[in-house]
Amino acid sequence: MSDKILIVGAGAIGGFYGGLLAKAGAEVSVVCRSDYDIVKQQGYRIDSCDLGKWRFMPEQVLQHAGDYRKDADYLILCTKVTADMDRVGLIRDAVRPDTAIVFIQNGVEIEAELQQAFPDNQLVSGLAFVCCNRLQAGEIRHLAYGRLMLGNLPAGISAKTRHLQQLFTQAGIECVASEDIVAGRWQKCVWNAPFNPLSVLSGGLPTLAILRQQEALVRRIMREVRDIAAACGHPLNDDVIETNIQNTYAMPPYKTSMLLDFERGHAMETEAILGNAVRAARRQGIACPTLETLYALMKLRELQIRSQCP
Amino acid sequence: MSDKILIVGAGAIGGFYGGLLAKAGAEVSVVCRSDYDIVKQQGYRIDSCDLGKWRFMPEQVLQHAGDYRKDADYLILCTKVTADMDRVGLIRDAVRPDTAIVFIQNGVEIEAELQQAFPDNQLVSGLAFVCCNRLQAGEIRHLAYGRLMLGNLPAGISAKTRHLQQLFTQAGIECVASEDIVAGRWQKCVWNAPFNPLSVLSGGLPTLAILRQQEALVRRIMREVRDIAAACGHPLNDDVIETNIQNTYAMPPYKTSMLLDFERGHAMETEAILGNAVRAARRQGIACPTLETLYALMKLRELQIRSQCP
Repeated sequence: MSDKILIVGAGAIGGFYGGLLAKAGAEVSVVCRSDYDIVKQQGYRIDSCDLGKWRFMPEQVLQHAGDYRKDADYLILCTKVTADMDRVGLIRDAVRPDTAIVFIQNGVEIEAELQQAFPDNQLVSGLAFVCCNRLQAGEIRHLAYGRLMLGNLPAGISAKTRHLQQLFTQAGIECVASEDIVAGRWQKCVWNAPFNPLSVLSGGLPTLAILRQQEALVRRIMREVRDIAAACGHPLNDDVIETNIQNTYAMPPYKTSMLLDFERGHAMETEAILGNAVRAARRQGIACPTLETLYALMKLRELQIRSQCP
Repeated sequence: MSDKILIVGAGAIGGFYGGLLAKAGAEVSVVCRSDYDIVKQQGYRIDSCDLGKWRFMPEQVLQHAGDYRKDADYLILCTKVTADMDRVGLIRDAVRPDTAIVFIQNGVEIEAELQQAFPDNQLVSGLAFVCCNRLQAGEIRHLAYGRLMLGNLPAGISAKTRHLQQLFTQAGIECVASEDIVAGRWQKCVWNAPFNPLSVLSGGLPTLAILRQQEALVRRIMREVRDIAAACGHPLNDDVIETNIQNTYAMPPYKTSMLLDFERGHAMETEAILGNAVRAARRQGIACPTLETLYALMKLRELQIRSQCP
């Protein structure tokens, strides 16, 4: 019998990974709000840089998780993590005792909220290294990368997580399982913490220009994140900074997700990426003056955006 | 016989103070480039919040300092201090052996360039605490404040500086003389270093909003400037931060000069205000992580502005 999967927050990322799971034979339904009408009628058209083009017709297209009439084996949450997003409220009505709750989201220390709300469910933390855009309602373009990393909370890899990993692998996407996914989340933050805010605060520079002009600043930020991760009990590999620097030089110039949100007037993941890192540092008694400054500046930038709104 | 004064860079600040000196009976000429035609014809119309309205007809209106045919008692330089401004070249041809060179400009550690070029002249460092706008060519509005601080380099107060102070005082503007004007410059930087870059990097917030939202950040920046000043041999008063914070809460919300330059697409005084402070810290072996971050961000912002230009 095929796996029953419910994707909540089926925009570019959720639609893309949901479409892959459907390709792999799972019974995939979606909750999507803004594009509901189009997706309900036509499903998604997905155009991938390396996995072909296909149409993804979800089993059910829903406006609310509570409308899902089955017992999900996996509920995969793919929204952004912003202050106005009630992640628990979004999924609560579709969570059954056997539902594994998977969240493919950015940021550090975003686990507690879900752990507290669903103490008896399997919780799977996921990271996507992917470049996906929503072109218009129901149209997704997969531009580059795609690797997923999954792992259970607080640590380890369950059989159910292994199974999900296999489904993604069958669909042709690289998916690795991690015994310490919390460390993986910090590791991703080593890249996100400099490039996301710097792209916004610079007024829109792509990654390569930032790195070329201010490599020393980027390295300082990366070191602060690495030190916070270690203080939180998740030491990262010694080469984590060097690898991130070299990879970014090798990447094509790239607009970060925070910059795209900024340009579109959407809420930014400031708290998930910067605020939570700064709070972890304060809790551990670690100084992170550069992150503190970036965080304060992003809060000022957000205040300015709000003050411009009618 | 009246004092012969040449103002170089006679925009809002230079025109305003030049107009005051003319009121006090000095023979004031100006070098102004962009508004030359209008000022040559009509002089300046100055509208002050507390010193009335008057027309200031300069003795001579010139396009180049070298066109000045007299021996200036005082040459007062009032341009911005930006990378593309050759301060020495602007004034060299009008400097005579007895000319006191006065610069009323923003920033720290901006003295050396002039000291090296004119080792035998009296050098007077000046700070203006004033809010003046150029409304259009030849029209200046004085909005608030106006206090001047003058002092000789490397320190002390000469008779010639006292005399200039008296001229300003006669004209109705508060003018104090300082035995340690270099400390005065650092003291002004305690305010400039946070509010100027934060106003730009926040996307345009006025001073009060910045302070209300991020007082802790503002205080961190102020402490770093205070510590650099002390390391450079210019310890500031213990209450310098508290006074600046309270004064800023009491001021009407204010757009900084750097924000005005930014909005008008003009060069910003990033190096004079931030870069020089950071370099002084590095020279003294003092850490200033917040200033380092602001400075790097301003350089990224400037890079982004240049990359937008055709």
